[in-house]
Amino acid sequence: MNEGATRGIAILGSTGSIGTQALEVVLAHPDRFRVELLTCGQNADLLIEQARTFRPNTVVIAEEGLRERVADALFPLGIKVFCGSDAIEQSVAMEDIDMVLTAMVGFAGLRPTMAAIEAGKHIALANKETLVVAGALVTEAARDQGVNIYPVDSEHSAIFQCMAGEWDNAIEKIWLTASGGPFRKLDRDALRYVTRKQALDHPNWSMGAKITIDSASLMNKGLEAIEAMWLFALAPEQVDIIVHPQSIVHSLVQFEDGSIKAQLGLPDMKLPIQYALGYPERLPTAGERFDFMRYPSLTFEAPDLARFPNLGLALEAMRRGGNAPCVLNAANEVAVAAFLADRLGFLEMSDVVAKCLEALPFKSTMTLEDLEDCDRETRRIAHEYTTVAAWPRART
Amino acid sequence: MNEGATRGIAILGSTGSIGTQALEVVLAHPDRFRVELLTCGQNADLLIEQARTFRPNTVVIAEEGLRERVADALFPLGIKVFCGSDAIEQSVAMEDIDMVLTAMVGFAGLRPTMAAIEAGKHIALANKETLVVAGALVTEAARDQGVNIYPVDSEHSAIFQCMAGEWDNAIEKIWLTASGGPFRKLDRDALRYVTRKQALDHPNWSMGAKITIDSASLMNKGLEAIEAMWLFALAPEQVDIIVHPQSIVHSLVQFEDGSIKAQLGLPDMKLPIQYALGYPERLPTAGERFDFMRYPSLTFEAPDLARFPNLGLALEAMRRGGNAPCVLNAANEVAVAAFLADRLGFLEMSDVVAKCLEALPFKSTMTLEDLEDCDRETRRIAHEYTTVAAWPRART
Repeated sequence: MNEGATRGIAILGSTGSIGTQALEVVLAHPDRFRVELLTCGQNADLLIEQARTFRPNTVVIAEEGLRERVADALFPLGIKVFCGSDAIEQSVAMEDIDMVLTAMVGFAGLRPTMAAIEAGKHIALANKETLVVAGALVTEAARDQGVNIYPVDSEHSAIFQCMAGEWDNAIEKIWLTASGGPFRKLDRDALRYVTRKQALDHPNWSMGAKITIDSASLMNKGLEAIEAMWLFALAPEQVDIIVHPQSIVHSLVQFEDGSIKAQLGLPDMKLPIQYALGYPERLPTAGERFDFMRYPSLTFEAPDLARFPNLGLALEAMRRGGNAPCVLNAANEVAVAAFLADRLGFLEMSDVVAKCLEALPFKSTMTLEDLEDCDRETRRIAHEYTTVAAWPRART
Repeated sequence: MNEGATRGIAILGSTGSIGTQALEVVLAHPDRFRVELLTCGQNADLLIEQARTFRPNTVVIAEEGLRERVADALFPLGIKVFCGSDAIEQSVAMEDIDMVLTAMVGFAGLRPTMAAIEAGKHIALANKETLVVAGALVTEAARDQGVNIYPVDSEHSAIFQCMAGEWDNAIEKIWLTASGGPFRKLDRDALRYVTRKQALDHPNWSMGAKITIDSASLMNKGLEAIEAMWLFALAPEQVDIIVHPQSIVHSLVQFEDGSIKAQLGLPDMKLPIQYALGYPERLPTAGERFDFMRYPSLTFEAPDLARFPNLGLALEAMRRGGNAPCVLNAANEVAVAAFLADRLGFLEMSDVVAKCLEALPFKSTMTLEDLEDCDRETRRIAHEYTTVAAWPRART
């Protein structure tokens, strides 16, 4: 990447929480970035508004039926408009794109991310599933193409920030910090009857529904552990989780001399987005600063795998490797959807994941097509489990 | 410095606390370091023992009367033996020396450090006074000679470790952490009657008497603030102090994007020594590791300048600049010596420093000779104040 000139950015999933914040970063630093490509699923109105402001070369809307509306609005501005997921995979290869921010939700982010890597684009990775499901394939492709993967998750960004200047020094271990979620202090019986509404009421920041549920069940932290293992080329036993309710220390790295580096600050998704887009330069911001007087005590505790079985399942899938994280992820997506539809209890999400991990035969190496098969088959089985699940009956 | 080969090390003050720990680092990594020069004040027996183990090219003992004893012991091994402080300044220029660790105590460290810089040697700086007293001269000389100054103090090492990979990113502010010392919770009346014995009983590690008293009075943290200002080219208002009784977070840096990096670990002087000697490589160690379960809460509080006036005086001297830090340092050295001789009360040390800062006329720029004059004159005045001081009477 040319460090001096503006950086050409593609944002996959521009209308979501990460995408809109990324555009705020671009807006604040017009001398550093130019938007080349915006894609979204179906929020045509917001996509049109964004395109009018940022004047990308191209936009893609996944939902075919919305293409005409977007095209009518943007053709007069000379902006190319495509639709469908194939168009996303093709557009990321555009020559003027230096970096692709992958902020699509779920398994759907995998193919476009792989397409961007194959096209030699650096990746700002906000799509967890890409590395959780296909870490081996994705990191190998990135190595082959000389592509850097910059993390956007605040925990991984913290590790990445701590690794600056230390690339030749081996990591001994990392700690990913976890807020513990809104149910950190509930016992197992209370967790059983947690409602969708309670779970969506996350204290620290607003995210999508899926990730909010994953945060509450600690599955999110388990997925982050798997992601971190691939991102930083670690063994499973080098990845530790520590609950830190204040969410000020965003994660820590320990080196082979015993020295630990941590990245801290007020919770703010924009900082890691900006760090990934601008790396290695830190762009000045005028936001609120951390003040020790408001956080006189930073506390840490071990996560309780008995009360949060999702975390234990994720760590087990990390240790197993192969298709286990793919099964874990697919089963969890189905389970969360069922919980959000009031068809499954909070702890029963873990039962569905555990059953799928038992049901699907283990495979140690996987092609992209194998992973898609595994994902599909897991979802089929998980749907069965959630359909017969006992949630409404559990209350009685 | 040639990163591959062994690094030729000179240790000024090899028989002190830092010097002996530095030699332990060398002993653990014989493939990385070779000792070229050892110097000490008057501990001839230990110097002889160290020279027998590490076989330096040259040793220097400052105390003239001890030269013969050292020479008799080491000539048979082919080790050159010199005496006197001029010999130290000359020996640091030896060709095979890559890095000079300045672990001498007090103002006496300044001239040899300057001599090493003039000879183009990188500096591992354990002598606080060098930068406190002569920060402008020393950093200018280092810039001119293309010499790096690697901090050995754990707080400055923490900042330095956090700066790795960030040299092009501006620091917004730093926090130096302070344990608060053994008297963190005493009120002013109790502080007045603190005894030498109480002050020398530091909880976290054993250091020399002078620095132990400075730690208890927070003067040490004030000197560290001035040192940090020069080391990292900061303005006085960018240097903040935060009391952190667990001494786990060794200091923190905030960048212009609001992101904070901290270095943490169990209190251990050897890590920063090793980091400075081995930079940028982190050498593996097998020591005890930090465990969150033993430190579930890390706490932070503002320092109380009313109870610890030494810190306020140091920060004021930092803001004034010029000869003020030189006066502060010299007055404090005399005051601490008087306290250690039971001739001055704990809080009266600050009175002596404050009086000297008032008595000496302000000078904005200073040569090395000016600084030595200022140091001498301050000591003379401080001696007067400590001689007439009211400590024994204060009890009545």
